[in-house]
Amino acid sequence: MSKEVKIVFQPSGRIVHALPGTIILEAAALAGFIIHTPCGGTGKCGKCIVRLRSGNCPPTEPEIAVLGKTRIAEGFRLACMARITDPVTIEVPDSSLFQTHQQILTTDTGDRLEVRPRVRKTVIQIPPPFSHEILSDIERLRAVGVSAPLTLPALRALPHALRSPDSRLTVVQVDNDVIALEPGDTSASCYGIAFDIGSTTLVGTLVDLMTGKDVAVAARVNPQTSFGDDVITRIQKCRSEKNGLAQLQSSVLEGVNRIIDELERNARVSRLSVYEVVFAGNTTMQQILCGIDPSALGELPFAPAFRDALEFTAADLPLHVHPCAKVYVFPQIGGFVGGDTTAGIVATRLDRVTAPTLLVDIGTNGEIVLKHGERMLATSVAAGPAFEGARITNGMRATSGAIEKVIIDGDVSLNVIGNAKPAGLCGTGLIDVAAELLRVGILDETGRILPPDECPAGLSPALLARLVEDKEETHFLLVPKKDSATGEPILLYQRDIRELQLANAAIRAGINILLKMAGVDASELGAILLAGGFGNFIRRNHARRIGMLPPIPCDKIRFVGNTSSFGAKRVLLSTQEKDYTSRVVRQVQHVDLSLDPEFQLEFSTAMLFPNEG
Amino acid sequence: MSKEVKIVFQPSGRIVHALPGTIILEAAALAGFIIHTPCGGTGKCGKCIVRLRSGNCPPTEPEIAVLGKTRIAEGFRLACMARITDPVTIEVPDSSLFQTHQQILTTDTGDRLEVRPRVRKTVIQIPPPFSHEILSDIERLRAVGVSAPLTLPALRALPHALRSPDSRLTVVQVDNDVIALEPGDTSASCYGIAFDIGSTTLVGTLVDLMTGKDVAVAARVNPQTSFGDDVITRIQKCRSEKNGLAQLQSSVLEGVNRIIDELERNARVSRLSVYEVVFAGNTTMQQILCGIDPSALGELPFAPAFRDALEFTAADLPLHVHPCAKVYVFPQIGGFVGGDTTAGIVATRLDRVTAPTLLVDIGTNGEIVLKHGERMLATSVAAGPAFEGARITNGMRATSGAIEKVIIDGDVSLNVIGNAKPAGLCGTGLIDVAAELLRVGILDETGRILPPDECPAGLSPALLARLVEDKEETHFLLVPKKDSATGEPILLYQRDIRELQLANAAIRAGINILLKMAGVDASELGAILLAGGFGNFIRRNHARRIGMLPPIPCDKIRFVGNTSSFGAKRVLLSTQEKDYTSRVVRQVQHVDLSLDPEFQLEFSTAMLFPNEG
Repeated sequence: MSKEVKIVFQPSGRIVHALPGTIILEAAALAGFIIHTPCGGTGKCGKCIVRLRSGNCPPTEPEIAVLGKTRIAEGFRLACMARITDPVTIEVPDSSLFQTHQQILTTDTGDRLEVRPRVRKTVIQIPPPFSHEILSDIERLRAVGVSAPLTLPALRALPHALRSPDSRLTVVQVDNDVIALEPGDTSASCYGIAFDIGSTTLVGTLVDLMTGKDVAVAARVNPQTSFGDDVITRIQKCRSEKNGLAQLQSSVLEGVNRIIDELERNARVSRLSVYEVVFAGNTTMQQILCGIDPSALGELPFAPAFRDALEFTAADLPLHVHPCAKVYVFPQIGGFVGGDTTAGIVATRLDRVTAPTLLVDIGTNGEIVLKHGERMLATSVAAGPAFEGARITNGMRATSGAIEKVIIDGDVSLNVIGNAKPAGLCGTGLIDVAAELLRVGILDETGRILPPDECPAGLSPALLARLVEDKEETHFLLVPKKDSATGEPILLYQRDIRELQLANAAIRAGINILLKMAGVDASELGAILLAGGFGNFIRRNHARRIGMLPPIPCDKIRFVGNTSSFGAKRVLLSTQEKDYTSRVVRQVQHVDLSLDPEFQLEFSTAMLFPNEG
Repeated sequence: MSKEVKIVFQPSGRIVHALPGTIILEAAALAGFIIHTPCGGTGKCGKCIVRLRSGNCPPTEPEIAVLGKTRIAEGFRLACMARITDPVTIEVPDSSLFQTHQQILTTDTGDRLEVRPRVRKTVIQIPPPFSHEILSDIERLRAVGVSAPLTLPALRALPHALRSPDSRLTVVQVDNDVIALEPGDTSASCYGIAFDIGSTTLVGTLVDLMTGKDVAVAARVNPQTSFGDDVITRIQKCRSEKNGLAQLQSSVLEGVNRIIDELERNARVSRLSVYEVVFAGNTTMQQILCGIDPSALGELPFAPAFRDALEFTAADLPLHVHPCAKVYVFPQIGGFVGGDTTAGIVATRLDRVTAPTLLVDIGTNGEIVLKHGERMLATSVAAGPAFEGARITNGMRATSGAIEKVIIDGDVSLNVIGNAKPAGLCGTGLIDVAAELLRVGILDETGRILPPDECPAGLSPALLARLVEDKEETHFLLVPKKDSATGEPILLYQRDIRELQLANAAIRAGINILLKMAGVDASELGAILLAGGFGNFIRRNHARRIGMLPPIPCDKIRFVGNTSSFGAKRVLLSTQEKDYTSRVVRQVQHVDLSLDPEFQLEFSTAMLFPNEG
């Protein structure tokens, strides 16, 4: 194994370790920074500028061409080109970052994040209580121009707020309701939370509704995973157990509320200053979160309970925010294509692109949207949890100890998350090793790991020594037991490749069906937008090599970040975005693959790895 | 003591015991039946017909005149005239009863109870689930014509209801919201509850919203009484203790929810079929119930938090009914004149009477409204809990064992509730004994119980023997210890008379101030309407004798029942009554006696009993 080198990012001070040869773009992603690459990471647009603050990093030809020798000498580099060789400190300017997520908008340019929230705070000067006529508290409020109806909690706060020694009070209005009254001037504290509710991961972003800025982000594993990895097992639980839905709902609610607690703690913001919460998730997740039985999603015709956005009150769940806070749940497209896909379309403005474009969110459930002409076609495929490291013998999630990158040359080089000893293989590592084994010829197109005597000539003895024969099958040794964290060897088993093939084929078959329906050839695609936490860490050439994505140039494959979170944030920040969301979701046609006889055929074909030999 | 006789009422079979000489009207009231007396109980209108089924009851002259000899011979009597002499069985026809409360409308004639509730149930035929296009559950509901927005609980019920084997579902709509969806046809089960929230007593009436009929009634002592008898002590608790309001609110909510539980049990009606709840109570009770701090009612200018009706959702409290049930809280008039008084005006149509009329609700807090010309003036007085038997040495509530009636002739005759040994004196008994002692001259107009040597000549030795001298004061022995339930003598103490004088004077002073403000002389009054549980048991001549009411003919003093409950029921049953309530409350001017320098003067004067000697 090559030795990893230490990379320090400024101004945050975050530290990661990566293999020599890693491009800065990927090292930054490891550190949690998504850098903007409008040209698709081809070193042409010069948008992904970073600056070396210490250490050495030899410039490449495209960098010198784009930046000029002077700026190169000053330490400027392009994150998509420059490769780590030695320990370095790198400054990432805000302008190159996804900090406000604005940069994920690869599909249209110049689009700004609109801040026009439904929550408004108004500070009122309280008139003296006594006059010739005795007014009730509400009448005194009306007298200073507050005419909207009060919720019961707002009315409960009124007597105290009116008698605040400050002689001012703050009216919190959402749409046409006064939901809170606060003593004094609290206009600076006005927050919302945008949630991405994934089958596996929950992500909450606390947003300042006045400025539109992110204040804190927190993520947790969805506690529902203890009841099963994918949505099907959870639907089954609702169908078969009397308290199944209640259990699953309280489980995800607990996760959501813990995230809220964490956001409150980290940002030092009172939960009572959170007045709106927006949720985006797939249909099953959204329905369970709301306590709406998803059983009908487990049988033909896979009908969701609702299509348009839902709105209700935080106390209805309840959430650990202001009890009258508004809750918005994203509109659903149909079947398993839910609010997260809607949010993805909203985040990327997919409806406005001109060339045929795919939006692909790879997760336990894969969602695919094809924009072509005036139409959008959307479908979902059950990729299974292989990309999350589940059902892989030595698989694990992309956390500390996970092998997230594999390079095969004369031997195997690994990159492990968190500078730890390797403990297992996460999704990106799995794709890497499959793609690399395909390239060197150890894996054939049917997905069989070849025994040493069938391998192509010229493989190094070191590689051949890693092939472990076991009855009819062959496995591949990634880490011998002396180097592993667990003291056990880490192997890629033949059956792990089968799991990967299933996940891979599901996504590719989904893509192929949509392309066929629209009459679009892969070569006509203007772009493939890869969304979701996992999508952002895939090596594009490898995803293409194993056939998950159609054979298009790598620069047309673009990472667009967590579009579910970002779409939710857009809607949280603006009533116009809510209107836009309602409109755009009606332009999407849901394609139910379970009813499509061609899907099985496409799926079988896609089980084979592409033959690029 | 005279021996009580047994009276059986048919068709209910209820049994009470009363002193010989009691009129049937009063005996019926003891049994819980309020009989309609439009003429004020003067034997003229012939509306209070009852029929003797066994036993003897000599007819009076007015009965013979109104009913004729034939019907007299058939056993018909007038409840307001016929006096019990022997054990009897009496049939009370529905037409003479307050069964639907319609009869309390002594102030206008021919007025019917309007049944036009805001809750509507519609039964829907469910179309088959499959069509060429897959619809979400909500879209299927829209397709059969249900266009109103769904609450979250209704949406939660939708997947199950849509797949009901019955192929029908019932939509429950309140105003413009679908609050529930029920599998099958549930249109026959549609209920509401009208609550009277008194400082001392809580009364709930379960009403069928389709027919307008009462289904069950339940009453409990307000559990808040454990924190203090009157509203002032409860306001003080909110002002001085951090959790005072929360404690008081959960206390009254527990009482309300226990009543709901009892109504559910007795009527065999599911709590989930209760879709609206209406509350009428004084300002303090209403605010505490809603969790709105009443502290401002404890200081100048005694401002209530709200004036217009409040509307919210059962889950906001929460109540043991459908979580989306609508809650309506009556509009408040000002200061301590609250929703119960508004309900009283609505119940009696006080705004529509032509002659000057007083509506008096006697309780711990006494509320008085004077209608004159186009105006209504309303005020409240702190009568204290004397009428509830509290702060009276041997006082008790009007329950089993309470002396509820006292007649003084040569000696003392008592009527005890529940045919039990006497245990104490309730409010009506207290008024009786005071009025009777005044009449025979043992009590003077200053309220002093005279010692034997100052008593008028000619009193029986039995009466004189009941006077107990104690230092400077004299007390009156009602029950010797051998006859009492407790084994202790029951006495009326001098200080008990003082308590009665305070309560009495408060009400009379309130009445006098309103009459003065309106420039109305007592003799011009068309009627005094006595409302509230207590008011219905007072002997009118005694209330007048002790000066609680101005000296007007007894037939102008009318019992109008629990107008708070009845007004709440009217509003529960009809949206038009809600509109009427909003209008009528604006016609009432609140009179704050705490700011009126004349009140103390009137109060001092009213401390003296009238001199009718």
